[in-house]
Amino acid sequence: MLRIENFKSIIDQYNIIFFDAFGVIKTYQGLVPGIENTFAYLEQQQKEYYIVTNDASRSPTQLAASYHKMGLTAITPERIVSSGMLTKEYLDLKVRDGIVAYLGTENSAHYIESSGLQTLPVSQINEGNIDKVNALIFLDDEGFDWCADLNKAVNLLRKRTIPVIVANTDHAYPVSVNNVSIAIGGLATMIEKIVGKEFIRFGKPDSQMFMFAYDLIREYRPISKKEIVMVGDTLHTDILGGNKFGLDTVLVLSGNTQPTDVDTRITATGIVPTYICDSAVVDLGGFNF
Amino acid sequence: MLRIENFKSIIDQYNIIFFDAFGVIKTYQGLVPGIENTFAYLEQQQKEYYIVTNDASRSPTQLAASYHKMGLTAITPERIVSSGMLTKEYLDLKVRDGIVAYLGTENSAHYIESSGLQTLPVSQINEGNIDKVNALIFLDDEGFDWCADLNKAVNLLRKRTIPVIVANTDHAYPVSVNNVSIAIGGLATMIEKIVGKEFIRFGKPDSQMFMFAYDLIREYRPISKKEIVMVGDTLHTDILGGNKFGLDTVLVLSGNTQPTDVDTRITATGIVPTYICDSAVVDLGGFNF
Amino acid sequence: MLRIENFKSIIDQYNIIFFDAFGVIKTYQGLVPGIENTFAYLEQQQKEYYIVTNDASRSPTQLAASYHKMGLTAITPERIVSSGMLTKEYLDLKVRDGIVAYLGTENSAHYIESSGLQTLPVSQINEGNIDKVNALIFLDDEGFDWCADLNKAVNLLRKRTIPVIVANTDHAYPVSVNNVSIAIGGLATMIEKIVGKEFIRFGKPDSQMFMFAYDLIREYRPISKKEIVMVGDTLHTDILGGNKFGLDTVLVLSGNTQPTDVDTRITATGIVPTYICDSAVVDLGGFNF
Amino acid sequence: MLRIENFKSIIDQYNIIFFDAFGVIKTYQGLVPGIENTFAYLEQQQKEYYIVTNDASRSPTQLAASYHKMGLTAITPERIVSSGMLTKEYLDLKVRDGIVAYLGTENSAHYIESSGLQTLPVSQINEGNIDKVNALIFLDDEGFDWCADLNKAVNLLRKRTIPVIVANTDHAYPVSVNNVSIAIGGLATMIEKIVGKEFIRFGKPDSQMFMFAYDLIREYRPISKKEIVMVGDTLHTDILGGNKFGLDTVLVLSGNTQPTDVDTRITATGIVPTYICDSAVVDLGGFNF
Repeated sequence: MLRIENFKSIIDQYNIIFFDAFGVIKTYQGLVPGIENTFAYLEQQQKEYYIVTNDASRSPTQLAASYHKMGLTAITPERIVSSGMLTKEYLDLKVRDGIVAYLGTENSAHYIESSGLQTLPVSQINEGNIDKVNALIFLDDEGFDWCADLNKAVNLLRKRTIPVIVANTDHAYPVSVNNVSIAIGGLATMIEKIVGKEFIRFGKPDSQMFMFAYDLIREYRPISKKEIVMVGDTLHTDILGGNKFGLDTVLVLSGNTQPTDVDTRITATGIVPTYICDSAVVDLGGFNF
Repeated sequence: MLRIENFKSIIDQYNIIFFDAFGVIKTYQGLVPGIENTFAYLEQQQKEYYIVTNDASRSPTQLAASYHKMGLTAITPERIVSSGMLTKEYLDLKVRDGIVAYLGTENSAHYIESSGLQTLPVSQINEGNIDKVNALIFLDDEGFDWCADLNKAVNLLRKRTIPVIVANTDHAYPVSVNNVSIAIGGLATMIEKIVGKEFIRFGKPDSQMFMFAYDLIREYRPISKKEIVMVGDTLHTDILGGNKFGLDTVLVLSGNTQPTDVDTRITATGIVPTYICDSAVVDLGGFNF
Repeated sequence: MLRIENFKSIIDQYNIIFFDAFGVIKTYQGLVPGIENTFAYLEQQQKEYYIVTNDASRSPTQLAASYHKMGLTAITPERIVSSGMLTKEYLDLKVRDGIVAYLGTENSAHYIESSGLQTLPVSQINEGNIDKVNALIFLDDEGFDWCADLNKAVNLLRKRTIPVIVANTDHAYPVSVNNVSIAIGGLATMIEKIVGKEFIRFGKPDSQMFMFAYDLIREYRPISKKEIVMVGDTLHTDILGGNKFGLDTVLVLSGNTQPTDVDTRITATGIVPTYICDSAVVDLGGFNF
Repeated sequence: MLRIENFKSIIDQYNIIFFDAFGVIKTYQGLVPGIENTFAYLEQQQKEYYIVTNDASRSPTQLAASYHKMGLTAITPERIVSSGMLTKEYLDLKVRDGIVAYLGTENSAHYIESSGLQTLPVSQINEGNIDKVNALIFLDDEGFDWCADLNKAVNLLRKRTIPVIVANTDHAYPVSVNNVSIAIGGLATMIEKIVGKEFIRFGKPDSQMFMFAYDLIREYRPISKKEIVMVGDTLHTDILGGNKFGLDTVLVLSGNTQPTDVDTRITATGIVPTYICDSAVVDLGGFNF
């Protein structure tokens, strides 16, 4: 475990950088100040980069648009790998027909639509269509009535033996400097326990996320895992998942993990990043484009 | 494990009967048909009985009134031991002043009020009063906005290190022949996991419930645990808790546990009742008052 | 939460003191230096005291003898409440005949013997006696071959639907300044998960331990929970259990919880003692017997 | 979910077959009778096949030799993907130098050896070498003293913040018609709980196992997940993992899952195979080579 002063020296050692989004590139307040330098340097050095994010609330196109709106144009839809994309791949491969019920916003449902499948909010399940529901997806914590629709989801799963996909495994996410919000992954875990069934989870630390990004690159050139470094702010998802997939990892202290307790948390969890760096911001001091 | 035809023969062997409420005396449809015979026989035989229930939604007085309304006058407030009463005892002993925040109905909050304590729904916590909140109680799944107030409870527990009491440990409860509803115990377990703290739970199978009922009797006469039998419909709460407290136990098949899978579930869980009986209804055939 | 300089001032406020044993009265090195002053002061002030310990390895008589050997004669067998005693009470009330199989030393098995029951180490279970085994008890991590006998216990529970009692819920215990040992509670939890059944656990934080001690006193005089304080070194067992039972609690820093991380751990777990004190040693400075 | 009479009709629909080993190809008694027909048919039809197994006790070469000894020569080392191979890949990529401590047999340790790394049984860790231990691997339940070495592993992890790899995630495995044995995965979970750290697990249902087999094929020709079917006897590992990776799945009833409870278990777990078939044996009736 090495403490690194300038994120630039990490970029210099690898050909491909995987970034977590929240806590690394942006926070609830907008972009991490100076992060545009990092992407300018990546472009200048002709390094490849991908955003690997536990987010199923919007499509890669919508996610990229939100970065553009904040002034970061380097992040295009092709550079985004989200847990929502793995959910869509699962539906394409494994659910042949019928209805896919979901908890989330219409936006989140829109982009998981597959040929032959109809998406339906859980609130609209009724006696007439319940027998055609062939999967249930937990997409987003917004867009539905928690009390009515979580209860409806429980009763759906008591009546129908169908696959359940959790498209975002996070249990909570920050909404302001002091407050968090319960995420769809937390709600899904509660319901899994109540119905006693086993759900399918996509999202870091699961290796399928990393594999998906890895395969995007392999399609046009051979690579080795040694060329890649994963950058994240959360030990339990970004670092554990990156390590397990065989990647080098950088823990940045601009999000979930605070400088004051980084050592305690590494010792307590046994999850050790290859490097620790204050942030993913490249310090351009003395550097000429 | 003995199969018993007529619940009457169980009453004849014990001096004191503890009954679970839901699934034993009543269901979502009202009283279990014929259960009034059981209480008539108990009175006639001068047996003692108590209702031991994981219910913090209403006071014993209100619970008794609801039985009276259904036509069962034998159940008086003094005969009811609820997980809400243990919560009140905890507050009396352990929380000296300030505000007790709660999730539940006003009814549920009313009877846990203690001298020196102010109860406040979680929805009304604000920056001006949060520092006076000295406990959080999960009382009932009704009476609040799940999305807004569960998130508020999470953030309260991130800011204040206070005891949290779960006054009903059930994770779900039946609301019709085919449907269940998520109970406050299920919501509490989700939040406990998200905040990473350890909550205090009152309710079967915890022995404090049985001890409370036991002490009510001991106050006026000496007893032995051998005089008592616990009657319930749920292996995991009524039977496990009764067994652990050292009581004989009867599993009745009028609620949670179905006749078709009782053997499978006993083998799967390893929780073995002393007796199994179709219901707690006394068959009066050939019996004259 | 109050920081207390001298444990004497705590004794002065209560009539009855419950002590945890390990980390409070003794450590792996012997008695906590000066602890004899505490018991001298208790006797001089005519306070009552009990040792409430998660220990099923030896009988109260043997436990008391071990204190006498170290020079502490104030602890007599009648003052000891152990999780082994609750196990014995359970067997007396709930297991009527046959064989009680156990994992532990012969010493640990000896004192749980009840009339009508034969104890048998798991290693001696065979095809001829397995059908008479009516309970399995996890007593101690010593006295058996872990590999052979844990596997034998798993297979016993696959063949026989019987109650399983865990007589010591601790998962690990200190054996030297730097090392711990896996305790029988940790082994039991592994086996519970493998066989998928639900075991009965006696030991703090479960309230049945506190109730047992409470009842010993009530037998000869009426008491209130407000007269009692529980003293322990472990948040998760002594303090959580004491709090839940309605007692005031003292966390001492002479065992499991270190002065350097006491605040972090209280915040992290949400388990708050009434007082924190360096140790349970009474400082006799300026005090005359 | 389709019930299939003859496994031959499944082979006819796919180009690549992944087989679980235990309960599908062999049992504790030797080869599943008739399974050689399946491999003869696969060869005759020029289908590809791989054995995907949670086994880290021996190298692929040794595993293949054990099939040859039983008379099944179709299984060569290149056709075997084991959780031990993923462990070796992890060490190659992530542990650069020092000692890798392990629990298991010498055989199991031998093939995870990597350049620059020394393997050492946990029993041989001492004060002189503990600081050079850079990883701990749980390989096999045999080859060590459970009591001494599991305790030693706990204390190693209290002193050193290092990655821990569990090379076989199973918690138990069958050793005879009536008996199971605790597997290294069960022991690892106990220790993970005691030390409170997060271990890395390789083995089904984790997708990294499936990805490894998938990549072996992709190296020499392009494939689609739709060409592959996974055949296994265990819902929780083979079927859940195969489904999640996007493969069609066959549950065979020759191992862990019995014909009498297959429906109950599918409903209880919510894990649904694409097909159910009595066994993976091809019925050659009326079929001419």
